[in-house]
Amino acid sequence: MTGQGDWLSKPATIEDVALAAGVSVATVSRALRNLPNVAPSTRERVQQVADQMSYVANRAASSLAAGRSGNIAVVVPVLDSWYFAKAVAGIEAVLKESNIDLLLYAVTNEAERRRFVADRSEWIRRSDGLIMFDIRLSAQESERLASSGARIVTIGTESPEFPSLMLDEISATRAAVDHLVASGHTRIGVITGDADGLGFRVPILRLTAFQSGIEAAGLGLHPELERPGGFSIDGGREAMAELLKLENPPTAVFAMSDEMAVGALDHMRRNGLTAPDDVAVVGFDDNDIAELFDLTTVRQDVDHIGVTAARLVLGLVEQTSTPSEPERVICPTSLVRRGTA
Amino acid sequence: MTGQGDWLSKPATIEDVALAAGVSVATVSRALRNLPNVAPSTRERVQQVADQMSYVANRAASSLAAGRSGNIAVVVPVLDSWYFAKAVAGIEAVLKESNIDLLLYAVTNEAERRRFVADRSEWIRRSDGLIMFDIRLSAQESERLASSGARIVTIGTESPEFPSLMLDEISATRAAVDHLVASGHTRIGVITGDADGLGFRVPILRLTAFQSGIEAAGLGLHPELERPGGFSIDGGREAMAELLKLENPPTAVFAMSDEMAVGALDHMRRNGLTAPDDVAVVGFDDNDIAELFDLTTVRQDVDHIGVTAARLVLGLVEQTSTPSEPERVICPTSLVRRGTA
Repeated sequence: MTGQGDWLSKPATIEDVALAAGVSVATVSRALRNLPNVAPSTRERVQQVADQMSYVANRAASSLAAGRSGNIAVVVPVLDSWYFAKAVAGIEAVLKESNIDLLLYAVTNEAERRRFVADRSEWIRRSDGLIMFDIRLSAQESERLASSGARIVTIGTESPEFPSLMLDEISATRAAVDHLVASGHTRIGVITGDADGLGFRVPILRLTAFQSGIEAAGLGLHPELERPGGFSIDGGREAMAELLKLENPPTAVFAMSDEMAVGALDHMRRNGLTAPDDVAVVGFDDNDIAELFDLTTVRQDVDHIGVTAARLVLGLVEQTSTPSEPERVICPTSLVRRGTA
Repeated sequence: MTGQGDWLSKPATIEDVALAAGVSVATVSRALRNLPNVAPSTRERVQQVADQMSYVANRAASSLAAGRSGNIAVVVPVLDSWYFAKAVAGIEAVLKESNIDLLLYAVTNEAERRRFVADRSEWIRRSDGLIMFDIRLSAQESERLASSGARIVTIGTESPEFPSLMLDEISATRAAVDHLVASGHTRIGVITGDADGLGFRVPILRLTAFQSGIEAAGLGLHPELERPGGFSIDGGREAMAELLKLENPPTAVFAMSDEMAVGALDHMRRNGLTAPDDVAVVGFDDNDIAELFDLTTVRQDVDHIGVTAARLVLGLVEQTSTPSEPERVICPTSLVRRGTA
């Protein structure tokens, strides 16, 4: 079924209305709530499309009357990092447009993760939907949350029950490895990110992709070339120190975040080494300081990830029934070539 | 009046109980709610002290039953910056200990600021207290908020109605200027932060302190040596470019944030200049990347600021009446001497 048939088979979301009316989700939201800054002709068109699609306007914004909280919760493993600050900023901008408030939770270790799942009735009552970053759920936990009525969008991890947003981690990492291989490197190290107990899926995917790239190039895998850096500057510094102490050190290093790459470069600088001459370095993120270090890195658009996640969760809140197949969004990445590799 | 007299004259706060029992606020909170991880002897002592002081335990945590929201709101002018991400992380850690949720608002321009003040009934209903960063309130707005029953802690700005948390901006900036003067510089530039319309008070205080330091050293004030950098890396880069284009450029520059200092250093590096030989540079914050750039800077403890603000606002929530004199906390700073000045 296509077109109008779809609208009959499941309730229209605010995103459907936006697409059909050719305007942004924010404009639909503002138009249907009679807020200013919408041209009269646009307001009329949006209202017509919404009527046609039997879209029930403004459920999220009028949620308080309907016994909803008017809040969306965001759960992150760490607050004071470039990635999460940037992503939360993108989410907040979209929620503000829809007059929804943002509840912020940090779930920083395994004990807190378990308690967060156990306390689901509390945050389900306090929020209409939840965006969960990089927090692993077992199949059982995921089912339990879904049957409790939780509306969740996951980022960096997938579950059968909830919409998700992922990078194409495999090709992102492969772009970095392939670039180093093409530059003639045959001994390539990796600074990994997993060092806490939350079991992030992202570092596992990146390590798998790294290993497959090494093997595809006909190079042997060397476990001593894989060092954890805990996604921090200090961790990157220490990991590079360990790699350079090896009897046969790598000539190139892929770091799973720019913070770790920059720490690695700092260790090199303190020891009179430069990139790429002594060791080539590739990072991941293209954060605010990557350019300052002339860092070659894998770029992801974190602002876009935040905005998309916010739209997905608002879509869930607007729906009256669960779609049969949760949406899977793959966000693009690209290799940014600068001086370090 | 001292001692017990004080307890009679105004209701005891959770901080009073913590001080008297010799434990942290978090421990008092956990002890009185019978949460785990508190030794039985400690729990007993805390309960005794609380009884003595007629402390009514746990008002914030039991707020839902009493018709409260169980939320504290945090208002920041920007989310994706090192300073605010770090401060919010400190606040979240304290609130979590007290079982309070964090509502996050970004108020990014003058129009949003006005709307936020106008919409006070909405967020007063949704939160039990509010921490407001660097957002200017007129005397009239401040009075209006107070008479609406808002419980607010302000950071970086003061009002007669609310407790506040400030750096000693004057001596912090003077330490930077005096250091440059003592190093023999007589032509000192400044990269300022104010570039938006929110009228932050902090950049104004720092500029005043800068100018008084220059005058105290018997050096003339030169308006062409004051350039705005908007608290961003790019802004710092551009400001340094402008300063170096002057017929008589400065030999030293004080930047009001490390981001701007690092941008300034990057512009110098691209033009083959080094600090301090060509231009000495001092920043402000001691953020995560200051050390990577060997940046001499004014250190502030942002984590401590977040924790203290959270405790102040929880104190307000626990109180049944307003104290006659709102608390003023001055947070310490120190000059960290590294290579750039």
